[in-house]
Amino acid sequence: MVELVDVPRGLKNVVVTETGLGDVRGGEGFYHYRQYSAVELARHSTVEDVWFLLYEGHLPSPAERAAFTAELAGARRLPEDLADLLPAISRIGDPLRGLRTALSALRLAPLWDLDPAARRRDAVRCAAVVPTVLTALHRLRHKQKPIEPRDDLAHAENYLYMLTGELPDKNAARAVEQYVIAAIDHGFNASTFTARVIASTGADLAACLVGAIGALSGPLHGGAPSRALDTLDAIGTPDRIDAWVTERVTAGDRIMGFGHPVYRTEDPRSAMLRDIARSFGGDRVEFAVQVEKRVLRILAELKPGRELHTNVEFYAGVVMELAGLPRDMFTGTFAVARTIGWTANILEQTTDTKIIRPSARYVGPPAPQPIPG
Amino acid sequence: MVELVDVPRGLKNVVVTETGLGDVRGGEGFYHYRQYSAVELARHSTVEDVWFLLYEGHLPSPAERAAFTAELAGARRLPEDLADLLPAISRIGDPLRGLRTALSALRLAPLWDLDPAARRRDAVRCAAVVPTVLTALHRLRHKQKPIEPRDDLAHAENYLYMLTGELPDKNAARAVEQYVIAAIDHGFNASTFTARVIASTGADLAACLVGAIGALSGPLHGGAPSRALDTLDAIGTPDRIDAWVTERVTAGDRIMGFGHPVYRTEDPRSAMLRDIARSFGGDRVEFAVQVEKRVLRILAELKPGRELHTNVEFYAGVVMELAGLPRDMFTGTFAVARTIGWTANILEQTTDTKIIRPSARYVGPPAPQPIPG
Repeated sequence: MVELVDVPRGLKNVVVTETGLGDVRGGEGFYHYRQYSAVELARHSTVEDVWFLLYEGHLPSPAERAAFTAELAGARRLPEDLADLLPAISRIGDPLRGLRTALSALRLAPLWDLDPAARRRDAVRCAAVVPTVLTALHRLRHKQKPIEPRDDLAHAENYLYMLTGELPDKNAARAVEQYVIAAIDHGFNASTFTARVIASTGADLAACLVGAIGALSGPLHGGAPSRALDTLDAIGTPDRIDAWVTERVTAGDRIMGFGHPVYRTEDPRSAMLRDIARSFGGDRVEFAVQVEKRVLRILAELKPGRELHTNVEFYAGVVMELAGLPRDMFTGTFAVARTIGWTANILEQTTDTKIIRPSARYVGPPAPQPIPG
Repeated sequence: MVELVDVPRGLKNVVVTETGLGDVRGGEGFYHYRQYSAVELARHSTVEDVWFLLYEGHLPSPAERAAFTAELAGARRLPEDLADLLPAISRIGDPLRGLRTALSALRLAPLWDLDPAARRRDAVRCAAVVPTVLTALHRLRHKQKPIEPRDDLAHAENYLYMLTGELPDKNAARAVEQYVIAAIDHGFNASTFTARVIASTGADLAACLVGAIGALSGPLHGGAPSRALDTLDAIGTPDRIDAWVTERVTAGDRIMGFGHPVYRTEDPRSAMLRDIARSFGGDRVEFAVQVEKRVLRILAELKPGRELHTNVEFYAGVVMELAGLPRDMFTGTFAVARTIGWTANILEQTTDTKIIRPSARYVGPPAPQPIPG
């Protein structure tokens, strides 16, 4: 008889692994990548530097930066067999499903058959190609020719460039870059955990990523920044805020963009994204700020003690809209960021040779019973 | 500060959920689906009846059997958009990767947006279409036209029929059916766990299945029945058995088809599959039996006390070969079976509204440190 170990439901607070990648300190409203505040990195650093930091544990020297930037640029091009598949895949519609399907087609070797350098090459390849796949699918859906990546542009800048074929506005590119940095990783969420479970079987990197994207697509994961914009649209005008919000909260509906399972304070990503949104200026931002204020006040009145704060979704949508990203690309943009974090987690998981394989407790009728007939 | 809960590495024996679907009792060499021995079901029942049992908790009445069989037959046809994609996907090569990519393209609604009847419809749809997808991809790879499923054939019989376009030999069809029944589920393995983690986010059924297939593709998961046949081929002739096996075991290599993380006795699937293989007769089977005997003797001598027994892989490959399945379809055939079990697990998981979201313990340098430069 195996002795089973009982733990809190949903494995809440159960330690699956040790990590050097970062942590979320919900009580303090703080999260970090390696030894640095993630929000400070988003304010002051680049995607390339933070990506290097997550893989290597330290920020790059100038020589390391040059080498890594060149490696990333080289990995942006679509592998030829994938380029052939994309027109068919673009007919699927939904961008996240399209990205997942495209990554699923990549022919990679099992992580267990690779040395650490080869694993890292696959990680760079997979994460670097995500913007190329997403924008190619988007353009194909709109009967436009995909645009080749440019080696001389930064990751986020090149993403926006491949979407339109025009060099993006500097403000817009930097806003998306900051969002991407802030969204790379965020503790041990369900998609990151999924990626690590699959990695623990020794499967290839694409197998881990398609599982993670599957988990990310779940409504409980909370990676859908477009939903908060839908809320702004549904409210429409400032005079309708109070009535709309009160009605929803009274009916027991969740207001998208508010509340987080970990933070008991303001979500630190939300504060940063609000600043970025405000740097664009304009009526849309001011309307969003008004809605946020009223929602927080009404939630505090109607749900006292619940500590419901603005989460990352609320201003993420506003920022992406201001940066010119179409709404159906928001979740894809989240995946542009998160793929970097997932690959860092997968690489870390490969340092543990033990498969993640928990148990279930059988609670059905006793077996065996004779088969009738 | 959140109190973290420490558990054994790899979540070994940690209870994630309660289940009524079945269990593996490794010490006894016994596993069951619901209240019945899985091996007895494989010996005496049909795929359709066992599938119904897993979804409903009881074996079907004649009326229930007729209705369920009709439902399955109707769900075998490829959705039109998937049929369009398959020629492109067939160029990926590897069947399991092709199946994953095809399922990833299915447009399903999130589990959380569906009522139980609609979830079950999606489960039937996904699991019933797997043989159709696998055989269509196989034929397209070999420049043959895919064959339409037939409503009047049983699940395994129709699978073999779609592969060749000819009605299979009754013995072969029953052997594959028995293998499929025995492989539908097997406790809380890494792919089943992956499917349930993704389901716990509320994502759609296809998202859960692509994650599960990813985990199944991992070398540590152990779902590659072709590897044991490769061993038979490498040995070649009876006179070479002892030298080959002794050399491998002495070098510290694993002999594929032997050893299991849970069973401390003979794998009950292996005993059943040996009987099925022997019912075919012939030199190949007798050679396999000889190899098994010698491997077990040599392992007992060279690794005393390790309790290394024949596992499911060894005779699964032999049976599938005798039934006429090409070797590169073995893992796909395992997926034909396991998809039924995964969907049953996913449906069960939807009765729990809590996301599966464990934690990691941060062990890196203290944060935040000032960002240099």
